[in-house]
Amino acid sequence: MDDTPTTTRPPRWLNDHEMRAWLGYRRMRALLDLQLARRLAADQGLSEPDYDVLTSLSDAEDHRIRLSELADRMLWSKSRLSHHVTRMQQRGLVTRQECASDGRGAFIVLTNHGMATLHAAAPDHVAAVREHFIDLLTEDQLRILGDLTDTVLAHLREQPA
Amino acid sequence: MDDTPTTTRPPRWLNDHEMRAWLGYRRMRALLDLQLARRLAADQGLSEPDYDVLTSLSDAEDHRIRLSELADRMLWSKSRLSHHVTRMQQRGLVTRQECASDGRGAFIVLTNHGMATLHAAAPDHVAAVREHFIDLLTEDQLRILGDLTDTVLAHLREQPA
Repeated sequence: MDDTPTTTRPPRWLNDHEMRAWLGYRRMRALLDLQLARRLAADQGLSEPDYDVLTSLSDAEDHRIRLSELADRMLWSKSRLSHHVTRMQQRGLVTRQECASDGRGAFIVLTNHGMATLHAAAPDHVAAVREHFIDLLTEDQLRILGDLTDTVLAHLREQPA
Repeated sequence: MDDTPTTTRPPRWLNDHEMRAWLGYRRMRALLDLQLARRLAADQGLSEPDYDVLTSLSDAEDHRIRLSELADRMLWSKSRLSHHVTRMQQRGLVTRQECASDGRGAFIVLTNHGMATLHAAAPDHVAAVREHFIDLLTEDQLRILGDLTDTVLAHLREQPA
């Protein structure tokens, strides 16, 4: 076992093979996000976080989730999500349901207008995800991508928060 | 050829196989970004865009790039990058070199302090990229990730800006 302290070991720079995968991932991420965000915005005036919030609520029991729980899932701070939800509330997409009795904080609730907006946006969003990503890849590439993201996610979920 | 207008065709929702790859990618992206951003911030107080700007400048001839060109590369608007550069300038990481003569706009130039900061940050950044991503994957997974990102990027680069 190598017990040299990390700080005194020379950095292990990425080799060409590793750099190709890393830069490819980084560039794809930036361009793909931009493309999908543009389509969502042009179609229904939604941002990606708007879409994520609406999708999470529509999948949840009674179409509601506690703000603190949704913030955890989105990896956002509670205050950032709370500001975001206020803006979605002003557009009639969600409401808040205070829950003073149990002290565990407010619920965010999907409105009928929020549900209708999600239903209007979803077909074009999935078409964009297909056009710019899924339909470009082979079955094998999709499977290996699923495997490798599982590996990385299992590792990342073990990291201290 | 199917010439039904897109709007009247039923949406082709993702199947389980496709959904696994797509959600895996999206979740990995969110968690990995967060982990790497935390390490950069804790180590040298840099954000990911700071690191991208410093890396781009250090790779460029004479350690300078036109603001408009760097904005294109980063997929940022010129005004967003200009604000960002102002804050980096206040921290002594970069300077601006106006270039009134040719009308093509200002250069951003790496300072010695910017270069020293990048040199101090790079070893820990590459260690974090290895620990949370590259070293978790097999040679085959890295190769296939490189192939698939090439395919997606070639497609995205052909899209209208």
